Amino acid sequence: MLGSTHGTLTTDSRRARVIACGEQPSPVVHGRPADVDDLDVSGRPLYAAVPDLDRFFRPESVAVIGASDAEGRPNTGITRQLIAWAERVGARLHPVHPTRRAVFGLPCLPSVADLPEQVDLAVLLVGDPLPVIAELAEAKVRFAVAFASGFAETGAEGAAAQAHLADAVRGTGVRLLGPNTNLNAFENFRDDLDGPAVALITQSGHQGRPVFAMQQLGVRLSHWAPTGNEADLETADFISYFSERPEVGAIACYVEGLKDGRSFLLAADRAARRKVPVVAVKVGRTETGARTAASHTGKLTGADAVVDAAMRQYGVIRVDGLDELQDTAALLARARAPLADGVVVYSISGGTGAHFADLATEAGLDLPVLSDAKQAELHTWIPDYLNVANPVDNGGHPVGDWRGRKIIDAILADPAVGVLICPITGPFPPMSDKLAQDLVDAAEQTDKLVCVVWGSPVGTEAAYRETLLGSSRVATFRTFANCITAVRAHLDHARFTAAYRSPFDEAPRTPSPSFRKAQALMRPGQQLSEHGAKQLLRAYGIRVPREQLVTSAAAAVRAASQVGYPVVMKASGAQIAHKTELGLVKIGLTSASQVRDAYRELTDIARYEGISLDGVLVCQMVERGVEMVVGVTHDQLFGPTVTVGLGGVLVEVLRDAAVRVPPFGDDQARAMLSELRGRALLDGVRGGPPVDVDALVEVVIRVQRMALELGDQIAELDINPLMVLPRGQGAVALDALVLCR
Amino acid sequence: MLGSTHGTLTTDSRRARVIACGEQPSPVVHGRPADVDDLDVSGRPLYAAVPDLDRFFRPESVAVIGASDAEGRPNTGITRQLIAWAERVGARLHPVHPTRRAVFGLPCLPSVADLPEQVDLAVLLVGDPLPVIAELAEAKVRFAVAFASGFAETGAEGAAAQAHLADAVRGTGVRLLGPNTNLNAFENFRDDLDGPAVALITQSGHQGRPVFAMQQLGVRLSHWAPTGNEADLETADFISYFSERPEVGAIACYVEGLKDGRSFLLAADRAARRKVPVVAVKVGRTETGARTAASHTGKLTGADAVVDAAMRQYGVIRVDGLDELQDTAALLARARAPLADGVVVYSISGGTGAHFADLATEAGLDLPVLSDAKQAELHTWIPDYLNVANPVDNGGHPVGDWRGRKIIDAILADPAVGVLICPITGPFPPMSDKLAQDLVDAAEQTDKLVCVVWGSPVGTEAAYRETLLGSSRVATFRTFANCITAVRAHLDHARFTAAYRSPFDEAPRTPSPSFRKAQALMRPGQQLSEHGAKQLLRAYGIRVPREQLVTSAAAAVRAASQVGYPVVMKASGAQIAHKTELGLVKIGLTSASQVRDAYRELTDIARYEGISLDGVLVCQMVERGVEMVVGVTHDQLFGPTVTVGLGGVLVEVLRDAAVRVPPFGDDQARAMLSELRGRALLDGVRGGPPVDVDALVEVVIRVQRMALELGDQIAELDINPLMVLPRGQGAVALDALVLCR
Repeated sequence: MLGSTHGTLTTDSRRARVIACGEQPSPVVHGRPADVDDLDVSGRPLYAAVPDLDRFFRPESVAVIGASDAEGRPNTGITRQLIAWAERVGARLHPVHPTRRAVFGLPCLPSVADLPEQVDLAVLLVGDPLPVIAELAEAKVRFAVAFASGFAETGAEGAAAQAHLADAVRGTGVRLLGPNTNLNAFENFRDDLDGPAVALITQSGHQGRPVFAMQQLGVRLSHWAPTGNEADLETADFISYFSERPEVGAIACYVEGLKDGRSFLLAADRAARRKVPVVAVKVGRTETGARTAASHTGKLTGADAVVDAAMRQYGVIRVDGLDELQDTAALLARARAPLADGVVVYSISGGTGAHFADLATEAGLDLPVLSDAKQAELHTWIPDYLNVANPVDNGGHPVGDWRGRKIIDAILADPAVGVLICPITGPFPPMSDKLAQDLVDAAEQTDKLVCVVWGSPVGTEAAYRETLLGSSRVATFRTFANCITAVRAHLDHARFTAAYRSPFDEAPRTPSPSFRKAQALMRPGQQLSEHGAKQLLRAYGIRVPREQLVTSAAAAVRAASQVGYPVVMKASGAQIAHKTELGLVKIGLTSASQVRDAYRELTDIARYEGISLDGVLVCQMVERGVEMVVGVTHDQLFGPTVTVGLGGVLVEVLRDAAVRVPPFGDDQARAMLSELRGRALLDGVRGGPPVDVDALVEVVIRVQRMALELGDQIAELDINPLMVLPRGQGAVALDALVLCR
Repeated sequence: MLGSTHGTLTTDSRRARVIACGEQPSPVVHGRPADVDDLDVSGRPLYAAVPDLDRFFRPESVAVIGASDAEGRPNTGITRQLIAWAERVGARLHPVHPTRRAVFGLPCLPSVADLPEQVDLAVLLVGDPLPVIAELAEAKVRFAVAFASGFAETGAEGAAAQAHLADAVRGTGVRLLGPNTNLNAFENFRDDLDGPAVALITQSGHQGRPVFAMQQLGVRLSHWAPTGNEADLETADFISYFSERPEVGAIACYVEGLKDGRSFLLAADRAARRKVPVVAVKVGRTETGARTAASHTGKLTGADAVVDAAMRQYGVIRVDGLDELQDTAALLARARAPLADGVVVYSISGGTGAHFADLATEAGLDLPVLSDAKQAELHTWIPDYLNVANPVDNGGHPVGDWRGRKIIDAILADPAVGVLICPITGPFPPMSDKLAQDLVDAAEQTDKLVCVVWGSPVGTEAAYRETLLGSSRVATFRTFANCITAVRAHLDHARFTAAYRSPFDEAPRTPSPSFRKAQALMRPGQQLSEHGAKQLLRAYGIRVPREQLVTSAAAAVRAASQVGYPVVMKASGAQIAHKTELGLVKIGLTSASQVRDAYRELTDIARYEGISLDGVLVCQMVERGVEMVVGVTHDQLFGPTVTVGLGGVLVEVLRDAAVRVPPFGDDQARAMLSELRGRALLDGVRGGPPVDVDALVEVVIRVQRMALELGDQIAELDINPLMVLPRGQGAVALDALVLCR
């Protein structure tokens, strides 16, 4: 079920993407355009198609379909705003209305066909945008924005109407924003702010307001894309486009539901390649959230753990609050590549420094102890009884005079230091005003990151409003927590992009030799027998125990002597689950007689339970390893995903597992293991030897290959347990379940 | 080591407390004063001694020792502030200085002895307060504040000086604040604010600044106790005092290190009895934090997990940021007892409501779906296509007119609703100003909690500054996260105090009969043999397997037949650890011959390993349960603590354990189990039966009794494993380790 939904999704969106690009090839600056050959073995695209949205955000000519200047009509207000905006940005604006001759003094055209030029952008204020689309295509309009609501956000009927709208634009060359969107893209952006900008993408316009308001705090905003219901243009398109824009330092997203998992990953991949940070709030941590989000913009909300993993795979920074989104995006937009990971906390009060250091260290930031030489240097300005090891406590007075700046410069000059954080808990103008100014001045002279936490809850102080917010080189926060979150995101993202290699470059385009073997083993709609499932694993080079499928007691005894005692015997059949509970597994058999008895017993039980067997498995007995589970499941949004977890009680009781969306490399397979709470088991417990992690990683990668090649034929795949043996001895799949679709 | 440090601590602080009370018995309003008989079986006090601090905070007469009006002397500024403050609060102020005749026009006295009256408060501006103490005692001065620094915060030498200071005041009747403190207690408090107040306690004055500044946001503050190094008066004394003050709605603490664990618990117990919320930042989540905190005020920082547990036991709300401290304390001070746990999220935008609901639900808040009747009622004012199930989305327009207030009242009238939260993401004056006013007006008419999140990062808007902050009935926040944290704290605290029964009321005062038996088994400085340890457990009514200690193979065979086959045999001796690894455990022995062989083998191994045995244990074999660990360890700050965890791999790999500080009741023992990540194991896994949780709880309580009675004689106690059998079958201690002190 899920799988097919997903299938539909990717197929559709792939077609949409491909045709769209066929129609309007992106200029080279937007990177290699997707073309039909750029598909991986699962038929999914390998490159994001990046629409050229320059003319959308900076159109030279605009048509307003449904323009009005009649008193009290909602369209009148919107028309007025658009006219003002067009004047500001120097765009020619053409009102279109069947009956009016003029709107606000501008000549009004009866229909799209009458437009005097090929317009870049048509704003559709009409109740039903569908009929207009053909006219827009005819008139070669590049972009359209549909305000109308009443589509997918209202339920099934609206969803159908939205699908028609999507079909109508597809292939016409017109790219549509909306429906259920608004004027946010054409707001008044401040153009007096410097520094790299934040580009904003929101599905709910209202939720973007506080991010837009950051401009009043001196943070530059370059774009706002209110994507609404995303019938055509989606969040991913804007991520790809913004990651190519030189003025964009970071991309901030507010996502209620992703339209298509793959297109999001491809866009995130593009941003990662270009080292442009993407910070995202993704609603849907819980069912409630998901449900209401869906009812709001009518999008799928993917299983949250998968969304989380997918974002981590591409370095997308996920936050929960709009305040975190603002603070993190602002810092990431402005911060330059870190020169070192070391963070120094500098404060007027030892208490403040200790408190901040405590929280920062707990959050995983590295607060190196400053060298003796550096401490000695700092003590030339700071009294000896104060602690300057890091945190650096200046005791207050030195910041009030010439020493203040020297201390800051001395800290920033330390090669071990990449970030200076100064929490100013309580404003005390004689000191804090001077301190703020010194920090701003010092920040102008360095590539290192200078952060300030202005702790006063009042926030109307001049040192905060004018001095600190007036600087584009200092990142100013109101809380310890947001500062720590943003600094961590900055250092993590830099580390991530420095090591980043796109998994799409290595993603297989053609089936492996294993694939043909596998085809012969698949049984559409059925569950494979354990033996069949293990053959499938073997086809992909995953080790299984020596075993033979036998249909007589005599054959069982022969098999046992070839496999080697002790052996395990299991009933093997198409529809068997819970073998152990049913008594269909016999372990530790050490003699021919035991094997003969076991064969008889297993077949008897099967007969009584009415289970048809394809035989009995005589398997090599494998012991002394750590039990893991590795599997493939379908995600509605992202398709086949690969899961690895700790076996036994850990997976049953703690659900201790990690998931990834293919394609991914060894690095991510290893990252999955490090996410397991019980990862220490892999290093060996009770003085036991460490297990063969390389072999485990190899199995995960091979299972991923199965997910890529067979993903749409497999409903479920589970290796449980995968016995991971001591280092150097490999890993063996002791049992497997495969459900074909 | 740790234990003895702790012992000293409690003994000292107990003596201090007892004598202090002997000298100045607290009036009845301050509850039953501690007296020497009020000690539990471990010799620790059972009641907080509550100093009467009325005359400290509102003195009628003040002496300033070291007063000055000389140009440029630091004391001059302080003297000036104190004179101004004394005038404001109507206290008589007496400058004291050996040489000056007058200070700022006030007659100056040469010495304390010359004071014209018995003063309530002496502010010591002298470099070394020690010599002055005797004079103060002589003059029957009630309270002294010592500003001088250079004590415990500077290292060992300073700590010694501080100890002298503590000795000097002890028993004199003078209660001392400081040293290393400041004027915070005598700040300008706004007296024009209404509503219950927040009382503030901080060790670092500077860290209290933002909380004090809350007054500028309309939050009433009644007291500020800057406790500094706590040579005498400590955080606990102020918690106890504030919890008795009618004007105090909540107590906010900033704690770097607790002076004494027990006094803190007793103070928290008093606050819990009186249902007064205590919100605390406790520095020391990490080593770095701990180290620097120690170097700042020279206090012990207890192991953080124990601090965390101790706070939870008494309903103290622990937060990390000063912003959370402010927002949570402000809400708890003002909120009335909740009429229901149901939270309704009400917003202008469906997106905002969905986002908030998602985070609130994840945080454990209960967002009930509103009844059909209520939804129908809301739809009389809200368009039908909008979701009003909860979150309630009004779509915007209704808030702009008469409908706005009706919607709010209708929601608040729902008996399922205890809390209304309105996130206002972006200010849009035509709507948000009216909405803010409606919320303020509605809040005046209800006992239910009304919260607003003002999402604009600007925060200078009139609706926020005047309308919302102007109301003491609306709790206004700047971030979703802080609102959710505070609302959760409010509902949790109400639930906690409603069910609260003080463990000190039931704490044992006299040893149990088990205690005498136990004495005979203790071996000071030694580790008990397994047999000895199990006898100790048996003395406290904890079940151990049927077993016999034997010293010959023949006796072993006899024992086995009495214990019943199959049996387990183990070498038993004083200093044996890691029995299993050494091969000193034989399980599943089913015959006399196996027992005879096992006896020989065990004694051989012991001989080769040079381990002296007191014999071999022949034990009943117990199977089919869940392995747990239960133990006693010493905490430097809180003394003996009780730990329970899941056995086997869960405790080894995941350290899945919970801790509590005695005394505590069954409720806390059960709470410990619910804190275990692997708690599901207790409900039975793989279709197994649930285990005997009652028996497990009983064992935890009996181990607590051992901790209380033998705590200062036991360095370590570990039951590992405790086999918890299926429900109704009890729990058996299969092995135990006891290290005597």
